[in-house]
Amino acid sequence: MKKFILLIILGVFHQFIFSQNNLSEKYNLMPWPQEIVENGQQFLITSNFTIGIDNLKNRKIVKATTRFLRRLSNRTGIFIEKGFAVNATEVTKPAVLIKYQRVGKLELHEDESYQLSIKNNQITINAITDTGAIRGLETLLQLTSHNKTNYFFEGVSIKDAPRFPWRGLMIDVARHYEPVGVLKRNLDAMASVKLNVFHWHLTDDQGFRVEVKSRPKLHELGSDGQYYTQNQIKEVVAYAADLGIRVVPEFDIPGHATSWLTAYPEIGSKDTIYSIERYAGIFDPTLDPTNPKTYEILDDVFSEIAPLFPDTYFHIGGDENEGKHWDENKKIQTFKKQHNLKTNHDLQNYFNIKVQKILKKNKKVMMGWDEILQPTLPKDVVIHSWRGKEAMLKAAKQGYKTILSKGYYIDLLKSVDHHYTNEPIKEDNDLTEVQLKNILGGEATMWSELVTPLTIDSRIWPRTAAIAERFWSHRNVKDLESMHRRLAVINNRLEELGITHIRNKSVILRNISNYQNTEALFNLTKICEPLKAYQRNKGGKEYKSYSPFTQFVDACNVDAVDVKPFNNAVDAFLINGTEKTKIISFFEKWIANNTAFQKINNTPTLATLEPLSRNLAKLSSLLLDGVVSGKLSKGNYDKAQKLIQELDKPVADTELAIISGLKKLVLNYKK
Amino acid sequence: MKKFILLIILGVFHQFIFSQNNLSEKYNLMPWPQEIVENGQQFLITSNFTIGIDNLKNRKIVKATTRFLRRLSNRTGIFIEKGFAVNATEVTKPAVLIKYQRVGKLELHEDESYQLSIKNNQITINAITDTGAIRGLETLLQLTSHNKTNYFFEGVSIKDAPRFPWRGLMIDVARHYEPVGVLKRNLDAMASVKLNVFHWHLTDDQGFRVEVKSRPKLHELGSDGQYYTQNQIKEVVAYAADLGIRVVPEFDIPGHATSWLTAYPEIGSKDTIYSIERYAGIFDPTLDPTNPKTYEILDDVFSEIAPLFPDTYFHIGGDENEGKHWDENKKIQTFKKQHNLKTNHDLQNYFNIKVQKILKKNKKVMMGWDEILQPTLPKDVVIHSWRGKEAMLKAAKQGYKTILSKGYYIDLLKSVDHHYTNEPIKEDNDLTEVQLKNILGGEATMWSELVTPLTIDSRIWPRTAAIAERFWSHRNVKDLESMHRRLAVINNRLEELGITHIRNKSVILRNISNYQNTEALFNLTKICEPLKAYQRNKGGKEYKSYSPFTQFVDACNVDAVDVKPFNNAVDAFLINGTEKTKIISFFEKWIANNTAFQKINNTPTLATLEPLSRNLAKLSSLLLDGVVSGKLSKGNYDKAQKLIQELDKPVADTELAIISGLKKLVLNYKK
Repeated sequence: MKKFILLIILGVFHQFIFSQNNLSEKYNLMPWPQEIVENGQQFLITSNFTIGIDNLKNRKIVKATTRFLRRLSNRTGIFIEKGFAVNATEVTKPAVLIKYQRVGKLELHEDESYQLSIKNNQITINAITDTGAIRGLETLLQLTSHNKTNYFFEGVSIKDAPRFPWRGLMIDVARHYEPVGVLKRNLDAMASVKLNVFHWHLTDDQGFRVEVKSRPKLHELGSDGQYYTQNQIKEVVAYAADLGIRVVPEFDIPGHATSWLTAYPEIGSKDTIYSIERYAGIFDPTLDPTNPKTYEILDDVFSEIAPLFPDTYFHIGGDENEGKHWDENKKIQTFKKQHNLKTNHDLQNYFNIKVQKILKKNKKVMMGWDEILQPTLPKDVVIHSWRGKEAMLKAAKQGYKTILSKGYYIDLLKSVDHHYTNEPIKEDNDLTEVQLKNILGGEATMWSELVTPLTIDSRIWPRTAAIAERFWSHRNVKDLESMHRRLAVINNRLEELGITHIRNKSVILRNISNYQNTEALFNLTKICEPLKAYQRNKGGKEYKSYSPFTQFVDACNVDAVDVKPFNNAVDAFLINGTEKTKIISFFEKWIANNTAFQKINNTPTLATLEPLSRNLAKLSSLLLDGVVSGKLSKGNYDKAQKLIQELDKPVADTELAIISGLKKLVLNYKK
Repeated sequence: MKKFILLIILGVFHQFIFSQNNLSEKYNLMPWPQEIVENGQQFLITSNFTIGIDNLKNRKIVKATTRFLRRLSNRTGIFIEKGFAVNATEVTKPAVLIKYQRVGKLELHEDESYQLSIKNNQITINAITDTGAIRGLETLLQLTSHNKTNYFFEGVSIKDAPRFPWRGLMIDVARHYEPVGVLKRNLDAMASVKLNVFHWHLTDDQGFRVEVKSRPKLHELGSDGQYYTQNQIKEVVAYAADLGIRVVPEFDIPGHATSWLTAYPEIGSKDTIYSIERYAGIFDPTLDPTNPKTYEILDDVFSEIAPLFPDTYFHIGGDENEGKHWDENKKIQTFKKQHNLKTNHDLQNYFNIKVQKILKKNKKVMMGWDEILQPTLPKDVVIHSWRGKEAMLKAAKQGYKTILSKGYYIDLLKSVDHHYTNEPIKEDNDLTEVQLKNILGGEATMWSELVTPLTIDSRIWPRTAAIAERFWSHRNVKDLESMHRRLAVINNRLEELGITHIRNKSVILRNISNYQNTEALFNLTKICEPLKAYQRNKGGKEYKSYSPFTQFVDACNVDAVDVKPFNNAVDAFLINGTEKTKIISFFEKWIANNTAFQKINNTPTLATLEPLSRNLAKLSSLLLDGVVSGKLSKGNYDKAQKLIQELDKPVADTELAIISGLKKLVLNYKK
């Protein structure tokens, strides 16, 4: 009997998964919902489109519906007569009828579920909270479709709720400052893929970005004038709140604190003069945990700042403190002995516990990067795992709440596949149900050593949309092909929210070509990718924070569009002898591209790219011959190998991402 | 003897003009400076580039030099070691040495002159004020040049100062709200062409965009939540101040006041309920000038708002009050009789004089649109001429200070030539020297009925750069060809300031094509222009403020790039028989373009453009035959005429701007 039930469950489960995959060929939803059923109907979008809500005084839902109407109108070009939601009781049948039971709180574990039904005559969104309704509106927008004569919504019924309650994006505004407008458009984009936590990394060695009225030296001396006023912080927090997004601030201490010490050298662990760090990396300046004044200043700052952030959680960083200045300081060494603190970890734990008390006094729950996990740490602290999933699992087992960022470091410019397949909890874990619930979710992290307002969107998106799906959708939603197909559409739709990832690529190429024809450069960006991980800025010393991030590499991106098609074609050709035409057309394109490139090759910047263009064209010529004739002479083979060697070297901080395909093809002609 | 001197003067004058024209073939300066001399030298830009200033505590010049270094580095890709200006006494020889005598005040008539000298070994900027030095830095940036191996500044000596002290851009944020970031980037762009007044049109029928703490109903009920907080206003004013730009606020009264009356119907001239206006045009709602409460509220608002704006001038609008509600109101009619006010103009003048007292109490000088010019108006009021130059001349004669906007209405989408050739003061005027000085300058006006944050930059730029030249440069700097050549470069350079006029065109085309290949659409934007003046929105009733401004017409612009080349080629062909090849290639392009268009023709929006593309291709085929064979059959001539008729009709609010050339060509084959 048990076996029989199991078989039924497995059968249902299988069908469930199957239908997911089936429909995910057709609908461009991301994150993919928990349940979706087609009904074969369609709701036609006309100028009479209306949204009915119960309460026109709920500012959050009024704003959400207004945003929805603008986006729908702007996307379709339809002149919607009623530009604002109407009271549902005052119209006979609104196009969209929204019902929710209560106003959602902006806090962890708040209900975000919704049900969406699209039929010929009406669309309904039902939710427990208005936040759930807002999530449903985003799903509805993703279902906009059209033929040659009409726009419509596809007829489906959806039941949806998130897998994890904490689905975040961290933006580091310390290494490079980001104006409020950049944050707002990214909050809009976050909401569009149902992320619900904006983790705001506000201080680091390179900048202290918050106005502190009680300690103004911090922002005056620590920011080059690039900081958020408290009013701007309130503005961003309120903007996020309207989208159902919590905001968690981070003040990174005791390491990563050069900007603090630029203002208050007296609380540093070394008696020296500090100045804002211009390079990237791990630096020695560290707050002195033995100095009472350190806690006095932290108390002033946190007590002043805490009320600006309504959220319960407050991030104190705590990462990468190597304790060099602690080791060099005799007073600190004596203190350690006196307090029986054997290691620097113990000393940092001593510090953390004192900081936690300050935060607790301000009604905040402390969180920090996984280094802070120490045996005596209070159990209500949240552990943010970045070095490995082990820290997350360990924390969860020990009863700490925890979130994961390891595997979601989008600044490393790894393929979206890398992040998407990074399942937070492997199925064969040994955690109890209760322990599993300690795993709250995760965050993509946008560290900003190498990004500026011009490029940050292109580093966050579209990969973060796929990460958002990992956090929201069922663990079995993992088909890479489906993800890529849907992501391509979502990627485009981000433009309507002001995300600049597509448009600014052209801006950069126009600039480096001095406004000549950029097509040749554009074609190169389809096969060149930025150096991954920390290769672009070795030792953190190649770039200063004010170095130019307006270069070819900044127009390039991970997952360059011609890479997979070419490399796959080569594989197919070598294994099955197919795809010959495709390979030939690539080579012809790169040969012609070099001709176009040489026409614009008249600036110092382009001169650095010229060998890449030229060598690729040369190799393309050789391999074109090879592919067409089926052979390569010894001389040409040697030439090809030399060109491969050249093309394998980074150029202007990019790598030629088709190099593996090229190498295979050349090797194929080895005698 | 007199004649001889005259000849010498004329000779010098002629040479001066000649040299202007000569060098303006070579340097991409805009506005063109008063004096420029070449010295044949060049200053090489390297990573050692430094800027030396006297006083690192002058925040304005520190910010200006930092901005300069970032833009230079971002433009060239050079890793400039010193990211901030240095104290001139601490380096042996800074690349740029900046000297100024005093910190400039941000007020009318402040000195903005500068001298710039570029030699092999050093660049110097000398000015009376730091504002002058900032103007000089913009000139220097415009002189960036390069060859294949280096970037450098061209060796010139420049002496420069503005012709007019008031050089403004008005932005209407009432018809469509513009976020702070949009204003900031436009302030940067203004500074780049040496404009110095931002006229901020803050209230109108469609919106009251300022937080008023004493009368919160104004922004709460009058703005749909889209208003500037007082902190944001301070932020914008401070940002402008750092660029040497004054900010003049406008609160348009007593007409254009529906948004005021939405909040306070009791001070309206009609006993009714008001709501925010969604259409464009001239509306009846008008403040009641006979009601003491009107002045009470105005006093509250202006007394609270005045301190936010450090500038002396305060604009009260005053335009287009047709007084319909005054005529209909018996109490107001009685009041007029009692006070011996014969016309509504007299009544408005009564109102203006009372408003002027409120402003004077707040240490502000009132200004208003030219309707306010009435005999008893106090002489320190500034007249803003918009209906004709006559008002400006009349005001100047009567001793009023005055500025001109007639001819600079950039919202009408007329050719840049129209604005550039609009010389404010004709040479044969009959004003005395003193009267001439009353003419302070002018303002381009960006009324925003049909623009949104997505498109506003493309409506302001690049034409406003040419208007800026009209206000700054000598009246004899007026060569259209030179202007167009330089403007093309300046147009591109605006991108580095974040101006979105180029990039957002592609965004719109991608959206309406649903992210298909946009080349066919892009080619159509090269020959289609938005309907001019008020044709796009007839009667103000075709568009509501929340209608979609994301259409093909919004991607089109005035001075479409293929229009002059085609029309000129037709003229040349018909007159001299030349340019045949060029005309043929245009026709071939438009025929091929229709083939490409049909491939993407699968959305309702594109369907509206399809006849345009198809008819143009058909006509191109006929005329291609005609041009090649030298004749057109009667049947084809008739067909061509019918197609001309079709193509002459507006399509999707655009006009085919090559229609005049097409018509001429067809007529040529009339039998």
